[in-house]
Amino acid sequence: VSSPQTVEAALKIGAIDEAQPLQRAVAISDLIYLSQPIERILETIEVIDAHVRPGTVITDAGSTKRAIVDKAGQWIRRGIFVGGHPMAGKEVSGVQQAEASLFHGRPYVLTSRHPELETWVVSIGARLVFLDAEEHDRLVALTSHLPQLISTSLANLIGSDPAAAKVAGPAALDLTRLAASPYEIWRDILRTNATSIDAALGAFIWQLQQIRASLAGPEMEREFEAAAKSARQLRTPSA
Amino acid sequence: VSSPQTVEAALKIGAIDEAQPLQRAVAISDLIYLSQPIERILETIEVIDAHVRPGTVITDAGSTKRAIVDKAGQWIRRGIFVGGHPMAGKEVSGVQQAEASLFHGRPYVLTSRHPELETWVVSIGARLVFLDAEEHDRLVALTSHLPQLISTSLANLIGSDPAAAKVAGPAALDLTRLAASPYEIWRDILRTNATSIDAALGAFIWQLQQIRASLAGPEMEREFEAAAKSARQLRTPSA
Repeated sequence: VSSPQTVEAALKIGAIDEAQPLQRAVAISDLIYLSQPIERILETIEVIDAHVRPGTVITDAGSTKRAIVDKAGQWIRRGIFVGGHPMAGKEVSGVQQAEASLFHGRPYVLTSRHPELETWVVSIGARLVFLDAEEHDRLVALTSHLPQLISTSLANLIGSDPAAAKVAGPAALDLTRLAASPYEIWRDILRTNATSIDAALGAFIWQLQQIRASLAGPEMEREFEAAAKSARQLRTPSA
Repeated sequence: VSSPQTVEAALKIGAIDEAQPLQRAVAISDLIYLSQPIERILETIEVIDAHVRPGTVITDAGSTKRAIVDKAGQWIRRGIFVGGHPMAGKEVSGVQQAEASLFHGRPYVLTSRHPELETWVVSIGARLVFLDAEEHDRLVALTSHLPQLISTSLANLIGSDPAAAKVAGPAALDLTRLAASPYEIWRDILRTNATSIDAALGAFIWQLQQIRASLAGPEMEREFEAAAKSARQLRTPSA
């Protein structure tokens, strides 16, 4: 189900065998995979259930889960909905960018168990993680949405000083890389995860205030040591 | 001037021709380059001037400049002091890591003009930037010291939630990379640039509070657009 241009490109590279209009597609599917922007996923959930065969598995790839799982709870009766979040991606989009190894070793969150879907996730090389929607949204607020907003804020602060670019080095570049992300993707994420993001921002501001209060004090050594330990743990594959 | 082990390693790889004790070395030098930790630079400045020949150029590679330039203003009379900050480095240290191309294209800040020293800086491929000590410290607080403390704070916040590592992706890794930096390097930087770092942290916390107040509002689109523009400018070589 996509635009005529995308369908044509997808047929050409062999990514799909055939395209169908939404209503027809969901009526003949065993598995429905919603990989649209979050707001479109929410709209689609409202219209498909009447057309699916009973027991059809419906999943999605939205970056926030509570709004989507709640919506599915209201609208999906004949199908079986399992929220999903494949935590992999590219800086470029479009069917031409398809890559079979994209999910290798990456976390793939499911919001409930479903043996058939689990087998499928494992078969594309992803690492299964089960989280309920609430917990998922809280954790990605911390590990993904907060980093994005930090990067956006830092780029704006540095950008407000014309002389700063003269001395900006690897540290500034590392921390402003995410600031290039397009707002179109983030609008839906911010709207559907505002509560958790607000909490993450609050906790982070508190951390910064602690650090600010003890800049030249002996507590800083412990802050640095704990941070280095945490940074290492994030980089260990078993984590 | 270094420890016996470092001298031996440096002679072995041909990085130096000879080593001397501090007092003898400064007495026979045309150019004295202080590449010690900041607190050691401050100590060295207090003891060398009596031994140098009049007109000897003394420069340094300390990451903050106001404390060092102030100290030199008090103690250096016979020598000519020019504060320096080569903005390049490696994650590994030691004479074995020497690399001729380390400074290619990187900013090299001098706090005052000195034609001979400028020629030398240009000859190693660095890009000359003139900044007085105060302005240098203000700008690096924004572009280097603030990013470090953000990364330290974020690593500690993420580290405080054991479940976070399960979903940490490229965003979390990007922003916590600096958190692995050793405190030994940062202690002196934080102590000698506390005022500017405090101001940068204050401005950044204010930015985050603005963003927090308008999370799902239309202002966010402008925040993202301005940030993307700033991130691009930091990445243009002409900046």
